[in-house]
Amino acid sequence: MMKKGEHTNIKESPLFWPANVKGNVLWVLDETLIPQRLHYIKVHNLRESVNVIRRMKTRAFGQFLVVMNTFLLEMNKVGTAQCAIPTARMLKRVKKTAAALNNSRPTFPFPEVTSIVVNWAETALKNNLEIRPFVSKNIMGYLAGIRARRLERVCKIADVIRNGDSLLTHCNVSGELAMAASICQQQGKEIHFFATETRPYFQGAKLTCWELKRVGAKVTLIADNAVGSVMADGLVNKVIVGSDRSCANGDFANKIGTYQIAVLAEEFGIPFYVLTQPSNKVKKGSDIPIEIRKAKELLIHSGKRIVRGPVDGFYPGFDIVPHKLVTKAIAIDVN
Amino acid sequence: MMKKGEHTNIKESPLFWPANVKGNVLWVLDETLIPQRLHYIKVHNLRESVNVIRRMKTRAFGQFLVVMNTFLLEMNKVGTAQCAIPTARMLKRVKKTAAALNNSRPTFPFPEVTSIVVNWAETALKNNLEIRPFVSKNIMGYLAGIRARRLERVCKIADVIRNGDSLLTHCNVSGELAMAASICQQQGKEIHFFATETRPYFQGAKLTCWELKRVGAKVTLIADNAVGSVMADGLVNKVIVGSDRSCANGDFANKIGTYQIAVLAEEFGIPFYVLTQPSNKVKKGSDIPIEIRKAKELLIHSGKRIVRGPVDGFYPGFDIVPHKLVTKAIAIDVN
Repeated sequence: MMKKGEHTNIKESPLFWPANVKGNVLWVLDETLIPQRLHYIKVHNLRESVNVIRRMKTRAFGQFLVVMNTFLLEMNKVGTAQCAIPTARMLKRVKKTAAALNNSRPTFPFPEVTSIVVNWAETALKNNLEIRPFVSKNIMGYLAGIRARRLERVCKIADVIRNGDSLLTHCNVSGELAMAASICQQQGKEIHFFATETRPYFQGAKLTCWELKRVGAKVTLIADNAVGSVMADGLVNKVIVGSDRSCANGDFANKIGTYQIAVLAEEFGIPFYVLTQPSNKVKKGSDIPIEIRKAKELLIHSGKRIVRGPVDGFYPGFDIVPHKLVTKAIAIDVN
Repeated sequence: MMKKGEHTNIKESPLFWPANVKGNVLWVLDETLIPQRLHYIKVHNLRESVNVIRRMKTRAFGQFLVVMNTFLLEMNKVGTAQCAIPTARMLKRVKKTAAALNNSRPTFPFPEVTSIVVNWAETALKNNLEIRPFVSKNIMGYLAGIRARRLERVCKIADVIRNGDSLLTHCNVSGELAMAASICQQQGKEIHFFATETRPYFQGAKLTCWELKRVGAKVTLIADNAVGSVMADGLVNKVIVGSDRSCANGDFANKIGTYQIAVLAEEFGIPFYVLTQPSNKVKKGSDIPIEIRKAKELLIHSGKRIVRGPVDGFYPGFDIVPHKLVTKAIAIDVN
């Protein structure tokens, strides 16, 4: 493990912390514009937050940040209102915010996150504390803690990577892999990445290649269908992927395609690492609801229809990797 | 097996016979324009033929047809010349044509095909026959035989398909699967197809979905990375793919992605069928040279760059499936 402070000059990837509240505006990195543009969407209210989530402007950890920051935004807006809102109405407002966020998309565990904030509001009420400052301070402290623990996980990832490694990754792990690559460079490790394209959104091609290149790492893009081939040719010796949701038994959900990479890694005896946020809320993978996205997301690319006629597309947004295929979970504790 | 004549009203897919000589013009279906347009490229000479192959305007069986028909085109051009070409010069011309075609792309077994024509020319010379009509008649007879045997294979495919089947296919098998689906419909079999997109050219999305829909078959498009997921969910009970090159031991080469589908099919105990053209020219899969295509074919889509900056892409055009992963080869004999 690295010594403390040794990685203080690591350049932060914009994807590491893609949403932040300043005053009455929540700034959300529009990940769909990367690598063409580095642009932040200004979110002013709950409705706009839900919209940003539904349109997948941000994903995974970014979604978590948007959820937490949306409560902060709502608190800040009340703070600037001329009349203080009565406590009971404030709790109602927090619960309304939670409900709207919970209903935005099925796979991400929104209720697990929003219930934390609702509990804080209820705790404040029980203890005769003003809800707004109590919840706001809790959110800010909570996020600061997560930030520190994610930086720790970046170091854990760098520890797993050895000199000479060729690592395959899928989709995008929100800045952490690029920052770990940056640490590895400072440690003098020669490493190489294969990034899958990750159809249909091309997060691997657009985000992972972009942020790995930003830190000067070597990265080669492959189509999702070339994973078996590069493994068979001995071009990959480790797999590191993220997770959108973890189960008590070690199963996890991640971007569609992760599962087949895990099966192929096992076939070739390649160690398979996953970045997780341990949770006991869901027992096993089959309990996770899989979001089926609209077929048009497969059928249309860059505004142009790939397939003509009434062809159906089936686009499960995620798949489940059973724990038996995981060599090691590189964990973060969000609680 | 179907009785003879039972499938005479099968609608032929344009992909089944995508290249044909009429007089001094070789008409080649531009598969890159499908499904937007059904357009045939006019090829007038050897240079244009090689160009059509290099630019992947046609693939697999289409390439074979282009090769054979290029000789026919060259013969026809000579036939219309005012002076008959001396026999020795004619043989030289056939060999020059063969050499140019052999050097057009590495993975497809061009020498295996062109050597057949060169042998005919040499046989004619040995037997004091005029090369031009001898070779032309042989090519036409040979192609007619292949056409009949491919129609037979279409029936064999239909035989393998059972009522209620849900079949996964990858890339495109040049009309045969669609025509088999058409037979199945007439036999009253209720079947369904999953077609993989097949990055980076989207042959599955553009060709397979298009031709299956043309015959009224049910087809659902999935991303290449969703294969493991649909198999895990029990949505597929058979895999049928084509092959670009077969080996004596039963290994075969096909579009990149075929190999990992074969591994996943075995993982789930799903029967894996491959359409082959048996050949003893190559002993085993590892003897097949794999063409590495240009990275820009991954990085640019619809003329738009997906990834910014100096990111490398690795695009092996094909991969090798070892025979142990094949449940049954549905064979055609080209010799």
